[in-house]
Amino acid sequence: MYFVKVYVTYKDSVLDPQGEAVKNAVHRLGYDSIEEVRMGKYFEIQVSSKDESVEETIEAICDQLLANVNMETYRYEIKQLEER
Amino acid sequence: MYFVKVYVTYKDSVLDPQGEAVKNAVHRLGYDSIEEVRMGKYFEIQVSSKDESVEETIEAICDQLLANVNMETYRYEIKQLEER
Repeated sequence: MYFVKVYVTYKDSVLDPQGEAVKNAVHRLGYDSIEEVRMGKYFEIQVSSKDESVEETIEAICDQLLANVNMETYRYEIKQLEER
Repeated sequence: MYFVKVYVTYKDSVLDPQGEAVKNAVHRLGYDSIEEVRMGKYFEIQVSSKDESVEETIEAICDQLLANVNMETYRYEIKQLEER
């Protein structure tokens, strides 16, 4: 089995209103040392070991479903797990 | 400056309806090798180097704001960056 972690974040050039809101909330709680917050999505995906092109599968899914490639960027890590 | 990455995910015992929906959508697209999808939140946080207890700050923010500790769990990585 493959265990894949996918991180989807806004491109640096795109405003992140959710991150901005979190930053403001953090400041209201009194944590003034926080300078910047960006928020993104995180996926943990299990892929069958029968898939012989995991990278291609993951990229296709990210492009089509998980990320809006106009505004977001993604990166992923693939780890092969022992079968139990 | 400190650069902190925070990952917030549902506890394993908690149903993840968003992940379930993503899995179904992926299957409709024809990627049948995907066995499981769990969805979480991802934060990139910049903390001032003046903060002498970054870990405590981050844990407090996670507990109070970023994660619902009843249903979610979080982990984080702190990296110290060179000042520019």
